[in-house]
Amino acid sequence: MPLHLDTTQPDFDRRFTEMLSMKREDAADVNDTVAGIIAEIRARGDAALIELTQRFDRLSLDAAGLAFSRDEIAAHTATVSVEDRAALTLAAERIRAYHARQMPQDMRWTDPEGASLGWRFGPVASAGLYVPGGQASYPSSVLMNAIPARVAGVGRLVICVPTPDGVVNPLVLLAAELAGVDEIYRVGGAQAIAALAYGTETIRPVDKITGPGNAYVAAAKRQVFGRVGIDMIAGPSEVLIIAQGVQDPTWLALDLLAQAEHDADAQSILITPDRALADAVVAEVERLLPTLPRAAVAGASWREFGTVILTRDLDEAAALSDRAAPEHLELCVDDPEALAEKTHHAGAIFLGGWTPEAVGDYVSGPNHVLPTARSARFSSGLSVLDFLKRTTLARLTPGALAAIGPAAVRLAQSEGLSAHGMSVQARLAALNGE
Amino acid sequence: MPLHLDTTQPDFDRRFTEMLSMKREDAADVNDTVAGIIAEIRARGDAALIELTQRFDRLSLDAAGLAFSRDEIAAHTATVSVEDRAALTLAAERIRAYHARQMPQDMRWTDPEGASLGWRFGPVASAGLYVPGGQASYPSSVLMNAIPARVAGVGRLVICVPTPDGVVNPLVLLAAELAGVDEIYRVGGAQAIAALAYGTETIRPVDKITGPGNAYVAAAKRQVFGRVGIDMIAGPSEVLIIAQGVQDPTWLALDLLAQAEHDADAQSILITPDRALADAVVAEVERLLPTLPRAAVAGASWREFGTVILTRDLDEAAALSDRAAPEHLELCVDDPEALAEKTHHAGAIFLGGWTPEAVGDYVSGPNHVLPTARSARFSSGLSVLDFLKRTTLARLTPGALAAIGPAAVRLAQSEGLSAHGMSVQARLAALNGE
Repeated sequence: MPLHLDTTQPDFDRRFTEMLSMKREDAADVNDTVAGIIAEIRARGDAALIELTQRFDRLSLDAAGLAFSRDEIAAHTATVSVEDRAALTLAAERIRAYHARQMPQDMRWTDPEGASLGWRFGPVASAGLYVPGGQASYPSSVLMNAIPARVAGVGRLVICVPTPDGVVNPLVLLAAELAGVDEIYRVGGAQAIAALAYGTETIRPVDKITGPGNAYVAAAKRQVFGRVGIDMIAGPSEVLIIAQGVQDPTWLALDLLAQAEHDADAQSILITPDRALADAVVAEVERLLPTLPRAAVAGASWREFGTVILTRDLDEAAALSDRAAPEHLELCVDDPEALAEKTHHAGAIFLGGWTPEAVGDYVSGPNHVLPTARSARFSSGLSVLDFLKRTTLARLTPGALAAIGPAAVRLAQSEGLSAHGMSVQARLAALNGE
Repeated sequence: MPLHLDTTQPDFDRRFTEMLSMKREDAADVNDTVAGIIAEIRARGDAALIELTQRFDRLSLDAAGLAFSRDEIAAHTATVSVEDRAALTLAAERIRAYHARQMPQDMRWTDPEGASLGWRFGPVASAGLYVPGGQASYPSSVLMNAIPARVAGVGRLVICVPTPDGVVNPLVLLAAELAGVDEIYRVGGAQAIAALAYGTETIRPVDKITGPGNAYVAAAKRQVFGRVGIDMIAGPSEVLIIAQGVQDPTWLALDLLAQAEHDADAQSILITPDRALADAVVAEVERLLPTLPRAAVAGASWREFGTVILTRDLDEAAALSDRAAPEHLELCVDDPEALAEKTHHAGAIFLGGWTPEAVGDYVSGPNHVLPTARSARFSSGLSVLDFLKRTTLARLTPGALAAIGPAAVRLAQSEGLSAHGMSVQARLAALNGE
């Protein structure tokens, strides 16, 4: 049974706050292990990478075998069915079209004092994308990470994907090809992150690392942060559905279950002012759950973290959604645009019953790498901006310096930074013919 | 004596790489101490905050005294001279004008399949700005952090500034007032960061924390990251000047010294193809150094980390600058715009001899919070974007779902996520009248 809450309960606020602060992740402390692996890679490069791949992935490689060759990639991708290739190509095209619109503008202007000011964006020179192996090896994630990097203009794009026991997911390689990835290495875990950050004889280091991974990968990304840039550290996924009006309970139940099947730590929340609809959806979830191949995972998530909240009205639902700041927010109501205006914190909003969250995972176009665990209050999904950096520009004329320089001298003096003041003063003196 | 390098030296590359990897910061491991302080604040709120402020700042407060009152702020800011107030006001206006142009656009469009896609930006609801006390208490940093937050539309803006022994910097309070800060608390250190992240009886928690601080503050920001958003963790400051042509050696020397006087760990680098100019600048640095009030700090920085590099030409200088990815890049050459085009990684570029870096610290308009320690390869200075988050939007019509839904079903199946597929399939079936 999921948790049932009702905003008319006298202790609702306490119970809702408790629900929000439920710890859904048991992060093992792997920091020492990971620090050791990183030190090994830094000290011994390829040799350590090969040893660790043998140990963790039961795969014997030599340095030449670390990278997939063009021929190997072609042989694997040739096994992909026409239908899968078409679906992946459609997804890649739509993701590319969406992200192309995210490219920010450079700006340059001259202000009334004659100062020419502005900024310019430039791509990160090289990026590394981590792709998990095994069950969580998702070709869609390859597209979602690699395409924004390519749109941003990243010069060199590298993938590390472990192939435990030599098992390769051909769709991952095809997704890499569709996205225009330059190099693919069959290494994983903290050792792959260390190789991307510090480089080995075979793998040149990159400037930015993105992509999901297990606790070791997450810890490694945290540890190399600063040496390289990283994206967010994602937690378990979540969906919050606000529903009212004529809605198909089966659709809503499947949307809740789609979230739950990701992971036993995932969370599905339904908020509605309509008790009958809530009951119908819950009944559908219970009916459909046993039919799922991933019933064990989805069932654990639903029992442990599934939540149904009855509200007085939609305004109350929107306010609760803002407190949860969900990764995915589905608005299955008569006027989803109006309700969207009343919410302020969500990674992605899916408007109306014809927009199931699952289309957003694959083909609608927006990125599926989104802020979890209430971090949508202060952070955003992956975008081309994650692969760009901005340089600010300033060019003063003598006249501009004469106009604003004295204020800089004054402030430098007030902060006790005399050389700052002198560096401006020397120029002002030259202007005054001193 | 600073380090002298010459690109014609046979071992130049090794020596340049060594220079880049010099460790300029001895970060004390304060993580355990900080974790203890955060736990105290979480457990005991105001009481712990008051005790820690007594212990570290030798200041006795009660809960009502944690915040500066309106009257206290007015009394302190009334002591600021007319000249200082005018300079700070000019700086605030120019910083506001620059950052106002950074506001990104919301987008919404309908694609050929009938999917309505887009995104919208919204401000972080509340932000906390840390301001160091004592010597490094810079009113300019208050403006550089608070104004972008206000421009972004942050609803509630809070400052924490320690006042050791009760000493208050009136310019910090005035800067907060000019920037439109809502609440100012006289607390500092890790305890202030913990209070901002978790809240106490008096201080409501915020969603994002920015601002510089010592090792304890930096460690606390790292530890609360995830609970709240943080800006970058800044390292020691640096300037790289590329010079050629008719340049005043005194101006360049003062620009190098302005960087060096910040901190003994700061770094000033001069790159030029002109040996005579290099010698003249170094001589000026040596002549001017003893005249500085902060000669000890600037001298330590210059001796330890100051670097002068002779190159064959400006192209070589630009390539070396890209490897250093400096926080501040000054281009004192005949055609600075052309040279700027040849560089790709820098936090801020100052074009031409009339644009000393010091004007950028105060009044030119761009932010002075910039990526250090080569992180300009992958990150950017503080901007309004740091106080905004983007929500992606998608709304499908039945026709759009019919067009792209089948590909989502296919990809969900290939990833073994059957409920994902079913959630789309159920809608497609309804469309087909099944």
